Amino acid sequence: MQQFNNDKSKSDLRNIALKLSYVGTNYHGWQVQKNAVTVQEIFQKALYKILKENVDIKGCSRTDTGVHANMYVVNFRTGSRMNCENFIFAINRHLPGDVCVYECSEKDANFHARYSCKGKEYIYKVWNDKIRNPFLDGRALHYWYPLKVDLMNEAAKNFVGKHDFTAFATLDSRKQENMERTVEYFKIEKENNFVNFIVRADGFLYNMVRIMVGTLLRVSQGKIKSGDIPKIIDSKNRSFAGPTAPPHGLYLNRIFY
Amino acid sequence: MQQFNNDKSKSDLRNIALKLSYVGTNYHGWQVQKNAVTVQEIFQKALYKILKENVDIKGCSRTDTGVHANMYVVNFRTGSRMNCENFIFAINRHLPGDVCVYECSEKDANFHARYSCKGKEYIYKVWNDKIRNPFLDGRALHYWYPLKVDLMNEAAKNFVGKHDFTAFATLDSRKQENMERTVEYFKIEKENNFVNFIVRADGFLYNMVRIMVGTLLRVSQGKIKSGDIPKIIDSKNRSFAGPTAPPHGLYLNRIFY
Repeated sequence: MQQFNNDKSKSDLRNIALKLSYVGTNYHGWQVQKNAVTVQEIFQKALYKILKENVDIKGCSRTDTGVHANMYVVNFRTGSRMNCENFIFAINRHLPGDVCVYECSEKDANFHARYSCKGKEYIYKVWNDKIRNPFLDGRALHYWYPLKVDLMNEAAKNFVGKHDFTAFATLDSRKQENMERTVEYFKIEKENNFVNFIVRADGFLYNMVRIMVGTLLRVSQGKIKSGDIPKIIDSKNRSFAGPTAPPHGLYLNRIFY
Repeated sequence: MQQFNNDKSKSDLRNIALKLSYVGTNYHGWQVQKNAVTVQEIFQKALYKILKENVDIKGCSRTDTGVHANMYVVNFRTGSRMNCENFIFAINRHLPGDVCVYECSEKDANFHARYSCKGKEYIYKVWNDKIRNPFLDGRALHYWYPLKVDLMNEAAKNFVGKHDFTAFATLDSRKQENMERTVEYFKIEKENNFVNFIVRADGFLYNMVRIMVGTLLRVSQGKIKSGDIPKIIDSKNRSFAGPTAPPHGLYLNRIFY
């Protein structure tokens, strides 16, 4: 077992970044809450067992209850000298089976998991078949009717670019002054019975991916026209967009720095 | 909603066969037990809601706690005239998300899910990487050291054919007089970080797949020699084989009639 040295002066502290993946089913999202188990909480407890100190963990993003992460980035400062490879194995021993650290690196002092983030990629997974798949229970949206992938791709093009996405955001206490975001990529891909929505942007408003996906499902149903997307964006009115797709199909897939 | 007619004479009863798939994680195997939730129990309850009668459900196999099924076959007799497609959707509405019926057919009177079965195929999934995969928690064995797939295939060849597999069975109250089984196929395939053990036989003794897999893992470790498998079979002595691999990597994959 490694020795830890926690009485370093602040300038001696290392800035450690970790990449995690987790199944969101059993958690109320990332961020610590009262009366609900979150990924941050169980991660903090595991980290304490390794470092024997409470560190301030910065997460790259909030995620909602039931949302999954193929990549989630955190950083924290510690006086521990443990090398990165050992650190991964040590913390994974204290994490439950549905959460795992798979990469560890030392960053310069300025790196911040959230503020240094230049972009994010989400995948929304749909199991598109009459029969549901029990192995995807809680891990993909089950959608019965055949989805019109070409039509949805046509509509999704309208999201690409810099727009005010107020119409595609749930307004809450987190309301931000700047509602503009730049969507860099939005494609819908069919692979066997999966229809995957892949979207990259410099940032996302609250529920933005799920509302865009819910809107595209309405396009496939013929209830919203592909060409109406620009008008809905311009309206800045949430009520013109489609419903918020359920959380369990959503995966935070990549974080760009 | 369909009408049901439950007062048919026995000769009027239809023999219905269903194919199910299920995630075994939350169940104590298939067969009804006291004080433990099994797949059969929740299936029986769902069936009762559709048929309004208690039918005698024949399952193709026992499965152990935590073992999964990509295909599980049941049959039962009923006077219901509901057509098969409607039946699938009706019962799936009453089953939890981790169990699903995906095929329904009417069989002749002699068909029996267990006794008519001519063979079975199992897959045992291993996630072979230093870092575990949270999405495979409870769904594949996490095995850290690189597995020697060629060496295990060499050893697995010795299982193929008709043998007395006493050395590869857990002896319990279900002990059968005939311990001979014919293994028709046994291959280990590597695909990215997965190493999958695929085995087909006319039947399997209790824990036979898991003990064969546990033995092949010992072969990869160099603790059992590939060429020793015939001697272990001949010994009919369980203590010479490897340990029983854990249940959560095991999938009942196909049933042959």
